Amino acid sequence: MESTRRPRLTPAIAEVRRHVRTLLAEAGPVPGGALVLVGLSGGADSLALAAAAAFEAPRAGLRAGAVIVDHALQAGSAGVAAEAARQAQELGLEPVLVLRVTVDHGTDAGGPEASARTARYAAFAEALRETSASHILLGHTLDDQAETVLLGLARGSGPTSLQGMKPVSGPILRPLLGIRRARTRQFCVDAGLHPWQDPHNDDPRYTRVRVRQTALPALERELGPGVAEALARTAEQLREDSSALDDLARALSEQLSEPADHGIRLDAGRLESNPPAVRQRIIRFAVERAFGVSLERVHTLAVLRLVTDWHGQKPLDLPSVRVVRQDGWLIITVPGHAPSKGPSRSHGTPRH
Amino acid sequence: MESTRRPRLTPAIAEVRRHVRTLLAEAGPVPGGALVLVGLSGGADSLALAAAAAFEAPRAGLRAGAVIVDHALQAGSAGVAAEAARQAQELGLEPVLVLRVTVDHGTDAGGPEASARTARYAAFAEALRETSASHILLGHTLDDQAETVLLGLARGSGPTSLQGMKPVSGPILRPLLGIRRARTRQFCVDAGLHPWQDPHNDDPRYTRVRVRQTALPALERELGPGVAEALARTAEQLREDSSALDDLARALSEQLSEPADHGIRLDAGRLESNPPAVRQRIIRFAVERAFGVSLERVHTLAVLRLVTDWHGQKPLDLPSVRVVRQDGWLIITVPGHAPSKGPSRSHGTPRH
Repeated sequence: MESTRRPRLTPAIAEVRRHVRTLLAEAGPVPGGALVLVGLSGGADSLALAAAAAFEAPRAGLRAGAVIVDHALQAGSAGVAAEAARQAQELGLEPVLVLRVTVDHGTDAGGPEASARTARYAAFAEALRETSASHILLGHTLDDQAETVLLGLARGSGPTSLQGMKPVSGPILRPLLGIRRARTRQFCVDAGLHPWQDPHNDDPRYTRVRVRQTALPALERELGPGVAEALARTAEQLREDSSALDDLARALSEQLSEPADHGIRLDAGRLESNPPAVRQRIIRFAVERAFGVSLERVHTLAVLRLVTDWHGQKPLDLPSVRVVRQDGWLIITVPGHAPSKGPSRSHGTPRH
Repeated sequence: MESTRRPRLTPAIAEVRRHVRTLLAEAGPVPGGALVLVGLSGGADSLALAAAAAFEAPRAGLRAGAVIVDHALQAGSAGVAAEAARQAQELGLEPVLVLRVTVDHGTDAGGPEASARTARYAAFAEALRETSASHILLGHTLDDQAETVLLGLARGSGPTSLQGMKPVSGPILRPLLGIRRARTRQFCVDAGLHPWQDPHNDDPRYTRVRVRQTALPALERELGPGVAEALARTAEQLREDSSALDDLARALSEQLSEPADHGIRLDAGRLESNPPAVRQRIIRFAVERAFGVSLERVHTLAVLRLVTDWHGQKPLDLPSVRVVRQDGWLIITVPGHAPSKGPSRSHGTPRH
């Protein structure tokens, strides 16, 4: 007789395990006996992931533990966390950390969902430090990816938000991005696991819930099945495109910018010789590196009008930086520090 | 008293005219008195466009005519075309062409919509030749653009299909891509014009109609207003990104490929040194240039495994080409023409 601890190898179990195995191998070699952590909520996705990781990690020469984040947003959240911890231990994960976080209401521009996310990822970072684990595995599925792409589309915030989540992002691994959510539920049924149903997952006050329950099903009904897969596939190609342009522009951004009084300057002529998609990224990366601020698209485009449509405009005062064109250079400074008059001086040699 | 021929300048009329004026100026200088044609269906979008072009073209030193395509798909289509022609003449457009086309049912993989589109664009090309017009103006609106992006997403056919329609594409100008469809209907009301209501626009057998009537409204309901604008904005940024990568890859594709027996060969090492998004385009462009066929993504990726995952694979037989790796070269030939054994010979110097 089989116990629930050693489940029969069903298609759902085989599929989830295979994805975990593949991504653990792809994540690259780790020193023998290294530890990976599973981010566990107790829901079907992360519970299936935890079970698959408990099975696959030892076979890859790794140890698997778990980290459970108690967001303390719902009554009884401590109990939910404790139950998830018990399940993790029963699956053989070790160590199992429970981290209680404080979600900062109202300060995050993205609302409570974004605040909870920020707190959760901070807790993951802490767990990695605390345990010296090399990676954290998260249970995002293909459905989560499709929802992310659709949310990004609705915001119109451009290719970046359409790229969705990456399977490998620093220490974060998402082995289930190619698997439908229903598959992880089937895994739990097959393995005799009892996932927690987060009531937030059905609360239509959350945009993501409305995307999941109404918008995506409406698209599938009108456009045919496979919309979620199509959205995920699109995200993959957009990631490829954007990453190629990002790498190119990052290198150019370092070549084209050099230190100046209270800021940096960029060669306007060399900037102009690049296509719009690259020019915009060069500006964005240069400002990010020098001042630690992210320009919005509308501001980046305003800066570029000093390059492509130069007719002696006045200095451009953006929320975080001031931009002046002078002697063929774009001079970017922090506000209140206009560049000195006369020929601008170079501080040091261009970086490359 | 104002006649319907000289309408009061309402906001809708001003907006449509301004977009027409801007794009006519952007399309670049044309020899004095040059002719532009409006593609007129008689619907609100193209009728507003025709009226605005009749007003703006003379002010830009141009003449404006119209071309009406009778698809002969509905009973009474000849009457609809004749009425559109009468309206065009009343607006002062000259010449006015009515072209009756035969829509090839069932042979186009995209179904009847795609067949009608193919026939229509062929008729536009004929009208340009026949009248020596420099451009043809089409009435696609922001709503059409959003629908196109959503359809592309649903197919998951990648960034290319998400880019939507271009405002300027060879001789084709689309001045209304930034204007909501409702605006063109308002234009017609304000100008006393009586657009034709195409019953096909309400026929839910067409995917595009379902997108318009159900999918987009569902998204706007669940995600908030502005989804159509967001989709159009996204299309614009994706066009920028893809065009930068296309230009880069097209140049590299010419540098990296050279003629070989019955085909071409590409330097595998130099191919590999590029990021995935560029590699894929290099292969696709090289095959397109040499053999006039478009590789699907899945086939391009298969070719690239001979580059990035080389372990002595067999020749790869794709529907249209055969690919072999030999002595560090990818040799691409038409099927039935395997490259000769032994060291491959170079035919001429690399192009650049």
